[in-house]
Amino acid sequence: MEKINYAKGLEGVIAGESEICKVEGEVGRLNYRGYSVEDLAAHSNFEEVTYLLLFEKLPAFSELADFTASIRKARSLNPEVLEMVRNFPKGAHPMELLQSVISYLSGYVAHRIRHSATCNCRRTLHQVAQIATVVAAWQRLQEGKDPVVPRDDLSHGANFLYMVKGHVPEEDEGRIMDQCLVLHAEHGFNVSTFTARVVASSLSTCYCSISAAMGSLYGSLHGGANEKVMEMVEAIGDPAHAEKWVLEALDRKQKVMGMGHRVYKAKDPRARVIEGYLDTLSRKKNDFRYLRILKEVERVFRARMEEKGKPIYPNVDFFSGAVYRLLGIPTILFTPIFAMARVSGWLAHVLEQRKDNRLFRPKSLYVGPDPRDYVPLGER
Amino acid sequence: MEKINYAKGLEGVIAGESEICKVEGEVGRLNYRGYSVEDLAAHSNFEEVTYLLLFEKLPAFSELADFTASIRKARSLNPEVLEMVRNFPKGAHPMELLQSVISYLSGYVAHRIRHSATCNCRRTLHQVAQIATVVAAWQRLQEGKDPVVPRDDLSHGANFLYMVKGHVPEEDEGRIMDQCLVLHAEHGFNVSTFTARVVASSLSTCYCSISAAMGSLYGSLHGGANEKVMEMVEAIGDPAHAEKWVLEALDRKQKVMGMGHRVYKAKDPRARVIEGYLDTLSRKKNDFRYLRILKEVERVFRARMEEKGKPIYPNVDFFSGAVYRLLGIPTILFTPIFAMARVSGWLAHVLEQRKDNRLFRPKSLYVGPDPRDYVPLGER
Repeated sequence: MEKINYAKGLEGVIAGESEICKVEGEVGRLNYRGYSVEDLAAHSNFEEVTYLLLFEKLPAFSELADFTASIRKARSLNPEVLEMVRNFPKGAHPMELLQSVISYLSGYVAHRIRHSATCNCRRTLHQVAQIATVVAAWQRLQEGKDPVVPRDDLSHGANFLYMVKGHVPEEDEGRIMDQCLVLHAEHGFNVSTFTARVVASSLSTCYCSISAAMGSLYGSLHGGANEKVMEMVEAIGDPAHAEKWVLEALDRKQKVMGMGHRVYKAKDPRARVIEGYLDTLSRKKNDFRYLRILKEVERVFRARMEEKGKPIYPNVDFFSGAVYRLLGIPTILFTPIFAMARVSGWLAHVLEQRKDNRLFRPKSLYVGPDPRDYVPLGER
Repeated sequence: MEKINYAKGLEGVIAGESEICKVEGEVGRLNYRGYSVEDLAAHSNFEEVTYLLLFEKLPAFSELADFTASIRKARSLNPEVLEMVRNFPKGAHPMELLQSVISYLSGYVAHRIRHSATCNCRRTLHQVAQIATVVAAWQRLQEGKDPVVPRDDLSHGANFLYMVKGHVPEEDEGRIMDQCLVLHAEHGFNVSTFTARVVASSLSTCYCSISAAMGSLYGSLHGGANEKVMEMVEAIGDPAHAEKWVLEALDRKQKVMGMGHRVYKAKDPRARVIEGYLDTLSRKKNDFRYLRILKEVERVFRARMEEKGKPIYPNVDFFSGAVYRLLGIPTILFTPIFAMARVSGWLAHVLEQRKDNRLFRPKSLYVGPDPRDYVPLGER
């Protein structure tokens, strides 16, 4: 048989057009609908960025007020969903729970806004609101505590910290949490966003599409890298050990987590901003261990790679785990936090897919057995 | 900006290799791992076909016995999942429930067999077993009846009918149900199977991958066509009205459901087999209304299309709805039945994807706004 070439993993293949986000890896730039993530992290908040992603523009004052109120009103879980959270097996991962809850929520949405190419997902913002509530409730139950009822006078990030920890966070910590959500809200056609678009292309509901995307984010090749960075930090233990650890890892050709990115050939702009948060929190808590270990890993790693003529920079996952740790968040919530943020991007992509939809149906190359006769059970 | 061409919906793009199924649309042939679906429907059963899809060969006697026993043992739902079914909102669609239940089940699987490229999904066959139980339990609850506890001495198809109707079906009816599952078990890279592979490519769990595929199957462009065929049959009402109805539909350029297929340019082999079941059941029940209406629609439609030089044939959905109806199954279960069958194909694709994995990460073409400055809220 003649060898047919194709792009494995669809690498380099254009799967669609998008107006949502522009990643310029060569120069280390990331814009959401034209606005740089640095500007958005500095001046905006997660609710406004969600509006921007879904409505394609920054909201006017009253638009933002209405939108924010509608999301905050939707934060509480209904009793059946809370029951699912309570019943979820101990030791299982909250990403599995999130995937399950999101499609369950689909059942609570009126039929008329399902299955339509023009269905307005903007009215189904329970998802954006409730993912945070589910994650926090799950964590509280793990600790043998009661879930905390959400408040509607806190930002999305601050309310999340409140629900996890049971007390209102200091203002700067709530703001940093919220800004981290801004920085993770969108990043083009990664595998989870692509999943959401593929499911949406069948004209399934936006809940079913987002639920499916959760499944991809749970995959160890997608979410979870910042967890592994923190494992590395724990393994190094002390800034003085970092150089030896990194050089040995490089000698063993072991991957150094959080360094390098398929797209960015300059420093990931999100990493720059999050490094600033880590600096702020380290000063505030007078705990410089994570920051010093990470900076030392970066210094040694980059120096070695530059010697080889391969400049490699930290990516978004390099500093974020340490920020979450200093905010008092358990490691198992890192990927669910990613989901809390990225749901806004996913929804924007679902809407965009529907605006000019074509069912995703690629071809496969058959490489299996030739036709053969069925052999009855007794003759095998 | 220069216009860049790409294949919308990835049409015609090869997204991967597969040994699982060969669809030869030009000649109307469909093989699972080399065996024709006609042979499998005539001589095999759903459990054996599931084995074939997952283990890449027909089982020996003891292999089939062990495999069948392990699936049948897994049919019962645990109380927490049954609670989810009970709590699911009235009027919501069982496909949303299935998507939710499958990722919830992921929480019940030991961590060590997750996330691994070599994780053996064959040991996680709860999914194959329990989808039927969830669907039947949901239906019973809709009718205000208690769910029926599954039996382990019936085939997958016969047990499903038993759980839906509350009595053991006659042998030929159980067999026809089971054969319908065989005929729907696999069909290459359609959108739901592609979804399962995309999610699996992130090294997520097989449950999360199957759950995601459910989301795509729920989409109105994928599952649900046989429901629409039955709506057409009801609208026609009498074989004597079929000719007029079809000709008027063609004049209005209205789509005649269940006719034609993107791939098959000859009669879909599954349609041929299912037409035989409809004939058998019509005789048995002495109810020829569906068969006669459908045959008349086929005759008129094909004659008209042949006049135009466009031969178009019935696809798998054309006769299956009528078969299910004569088996006493409510219309809303048609897509969930598709899911009960296709899960075997999805699992085979998840395993195949992992054997030689590459993360799916296509490119997108940015067509959004140029960089712009953030405008503070007060100045908008």
